Amino acid sequence: MAKIRSFSYVLCHLVLVLVNVYIFRKMYYYDNEKLSWSQTAAQEAEKIASISCSGHGRAYIDGYVNVDGNPICECYSCYGGIDCSLFSSNCSVNVESGDPLFLEPFWMQNAASSAVVVAGWHRMSYVFPNNQFFISKELEKNIRKIHAIAKNAITHGKYIIFGTGSTQLLHAAVHALSMDNNYSTVVANKIPYYSLYKLQTEYFQTRHYEFGGDSSVLKNNSDFAGNVIEFVTSPNNPDGKLESPVLNGPNVKHIYDHAYYWSHYTAIPAPADEDLMIFSMSKLTGHAGSRFGWAIVKDVNVYTRMMEFISLAEMGTSKEVQLRALTLLKAVAQGDGKQLFNFAQHVLTYRWEKLSHIFSLTKRFNLQTIPTQYCTFFERTRKPSPAYAWVKCKRKEDKNCQEVFRVAKIIVRSSRKFYAGDRYVRFSLLTGQHDFDMLIHRLKELVSQEYEASAQAMSSF
Amino acid sequence: MAKIRSFSYVLCHLVLVLVNVYIFRKMYYYDNEKLSWSQTAAQEAEKIASISCSGHGRAYIDGYVNVDGNPICECYSCYGGIDCSLFSSNCSVNVESGDPLFLEPFWMQNAASSAVVVAGWHRMSYVFPNNQFFISKELEKNIRKIHAIAKNAITHGKYIIFGTGSTQLLHAAVHALSMDNNYSTVVANKIPYYSLYKLQTEYFQTRHYEFGGDSSVLKNNSDFAGNVIEFVTSPNNPDGKLESPVLNGPNVKHIYDHAYYWSHYTAIPAPADEDLMIFSMSKLTGHAGSRFGWAIVKDVNVYTRMMEFISLAEMGTSKEVQLRALTLLKAVAQGDGKQLFNFAQHVLTYRWEKLSHIFSLTKRFNLQTIPTQYCTFFERTRKPSPAYAWVKCKRKEDKNCQEVFRVAKIIVRSSRKFYAGDRYVRFSLLTGQHDFDMLIHRLKELVSQEYEASAQAMSSF
Repeated sequence: MAKIRSFSYVLCHLVLVLVNVYIFRKMYYYDNEKLSWSQTAAQEAEKIASISCSGHGRAYIDGYVNVDGNPICECYSCYGGIDCSLFSSNCSVNVESGDPLFLEPFWMQNAASSAVVVAGWHRMSYVFPNNQFFISKELEKNIRKIHAIAKNAITHGKYIIFGTGSTQLLHAAVHALSMDNNYSTVVANKIPYYSLYKLQTEYFQTRHYEFGGDSSVLKNNSDFAGNVIEFVTSPNNPDGKLESPVLNGPNVKHIYDHAYYWSHYTAIPAPADEDLMIFSMSKLTGHAGSRFGWAIVKDVNVYTRMMEFISLAEMGTSKEVQLRALTLLKAVAQGDGKQLFNFAQHVLTYRWEKLSHIFSLTKRFNLQTIPTQYCTFFERTRKPSPAYAWVKCKRKEDKNCQEVFRVAKIIVRSSRKFYAGDRYVRFSLLTGQHDFDMLIHRLKELVSQEYEASAQAMSSF
Repeated sequence: MAKIRSFSYVLCHLVLVLVNVYIFRKMYYYDNEKLSWSQTAAQEAEKIASISCSGHGRAYIDGYVNVDGNPICECYSCYGGIDCSLFSSNCSVNVESGDPLFLEPFWMQNAASSAVVVAGWHRMSYVFPNNQFFISKELEKNIRKIHAIAKNAITHGKYIIFGTGSTQLLHAAVHALSMDNNYSTVVANKIPYYSLYKLQTEYFQTRHYEFGGDSSVLKNNSDFAGNVIEFVTSPNNPDGKLESPVLNGPNVKHIYDHAYYWSHYTAIPAPADEDLMIFSMSKLTGHAGSRFGWAIVKDVNVYTRMMEFISLAEMGTSKEVQLRALTLLKAVAQGDGKQLFNFAQHVLTYRWEKLSHIFSLTKRFNLQTIPTQYCTFFERTRKPSPAYAWVKCKRKEDKNCQEVFRVAKIIVRSSRKFYAGDRYVRFSLLTGQHDFDMLIHRLKELVSQEYEASAQAMSSF
């Protein structure tokens, strides 16, 4: 009996010792993972990210705080209340801006690879070392890599310049190209065109250039012999069409705004290989708020002048933004590098099909047509997936198309903002899923009104 | 005997169980601290931050990587080799730029409160919600708080605008102030002045203004009746003097460049209360690379125009930068809010004393004089602690002062860059400790040459 008891003690002991060894190993493993200075910030970030806001909003570490100092929920449109649980069924859906929030879920799915931890002493200097000045060479390398993966631009033998969004680079490019000549006329490729080209050129009112509208004005003026800078937006904002220059000749220079030239939004027939091309993080990864863009430039003089512009305008681009862009681009390039592109194209194709179906049921409106085209990135013919819907109000009385949609509780951008009268509107298809669902809901209501009206008209016969 | 054995088993058991309970508690505690998506990024950041580079350099998460994909050391000037252990005794020390690296150790000491963790989906939108557009209201609130702590500016009843460095805001301010009038002449307060005012105004060549030199030109021209925008840089860059406007009258508007109006660099006689004041994070926290500044503006029209400028130039300021600025300013405001100010003033006062002592030993050079003055922040009369030394070469033959220092292996900024001829140079006192030590070493060598030369001259008699 004593032997059995003794044996059971020993056994018990042994088990306990083994359990302890296991626990110690685990603790040691934990210890390896344990953090020092970044622990609190990381915990705080995760804590705030985990606030659910009823699935209808989001809390941010730099958001408004309540009396306890905790960030409060920022609700999606049509939702309210302290936890965004209150739905306002009567509200308007806003699809006016080009906010690329459709990519938010991708980054939530890739949270670990896209997180950035910035030390308090990170890159305090104005410049990167070794004569790199304002440009992170690692980021430049990764931008070239992404273009090689995306098959949308040839960067070999070209310079890369960073800017605070493509917005700044458009301005820098006009400035750099106009410096050779006494005077240049800046034109947009075709109507409809992105309003910034006009607004920016006119606002800064330099002595070197002025805005001349769309290029047809000069095309039809055979007497014009001045210097021209033509913006070629391809795919075009708003209508998504692939465009080429209208004007050519020794006095014409082109700025290719390729913000949307990613397989998210268009077939890529071939990599772009122009002398001055501008891209933005906003439409590649969806980080519009970061304000990061880059220009790919062939000519060394244009490159030098654009760098000078960036330097005198603001002494280079923020180091925090460059670090985040680097992290995000590395995450994009992971594995076969196709994950983001597949995700984006999948979401936008689905949305376009959904929208096309609704517009096929109405005679009141017309949706732009986009051809199915062979895409060298996907190595197949692909369906359309544009960033925006460009919709015409066909009824004679619907002169102000934006107003028609406003009444239907859909806030859109009028074609007036694209210098194309009032007959068209632009819907963004880049919104968060919630806003897209609301858009579809409101559109169905609008289209069903047409049926109800015709049913009423029929019944009155 | 059996009883004793049995008792010892039970005791042993009990101890083991207690140890286990302790360990389990500790594990549970660890579990609470355990991170999910931010863990890898935080570990990576800490790992890279811990690379020592022999104490003569630093590794960054966005730095060049070696063949194994690990970031390599970026060495301080005069150091080289893979771990920055090789000292080049013959090299020049560079104190030319205004890089505020003297504040780096402060952020290393405050690593936990200054760390920032950015989620992949953080602030992807162009705008903050609730009509805040491009401005983080939390950051704005904290900027007002810092000025209240620093007692250097009155923000009450004024608007705040963010920019990509004060650099962008200087440009935006000139633009906004010139829009009222047909034409404005932009002048700098006094010679010597910061070159950017001239370079920027001339580079952008708008139809609304041109650069007119320093204000004495207009002061002495009694016939001049045009509109004037005067930059008042106080404390002045390069010489650190507190300045007030030279020109006054109904046609004169002022832009107060208060980048250095912090108790780091000057006594604060009273909080500044001007209509248009510009500050920068670069000279407050030392984060020049972030490119973040703000303007404090009284007039709503000037505010609106400056906001329009920022919007058309680049659609607002990066969200990453705003988040980092918020974190850093919160860290500054911790406790009694005086920690950073004490640190900065302490370092710079020490440096100024060290430099003053060396220059007191030479007749060849002259250091600017800065009065001891009562400071409302420190609530006492304080010694000088300017950002820069402004040094005159007194010998007739030392016409090119920069060259004298270049030969002595000290790279400085010539007074030519401040439109003040070649007789003066600017040394930065804002460098990292290593560069400051090197500067003192080289200066001692230079001054000792003077003694050797006079000794030789004496011995030749």
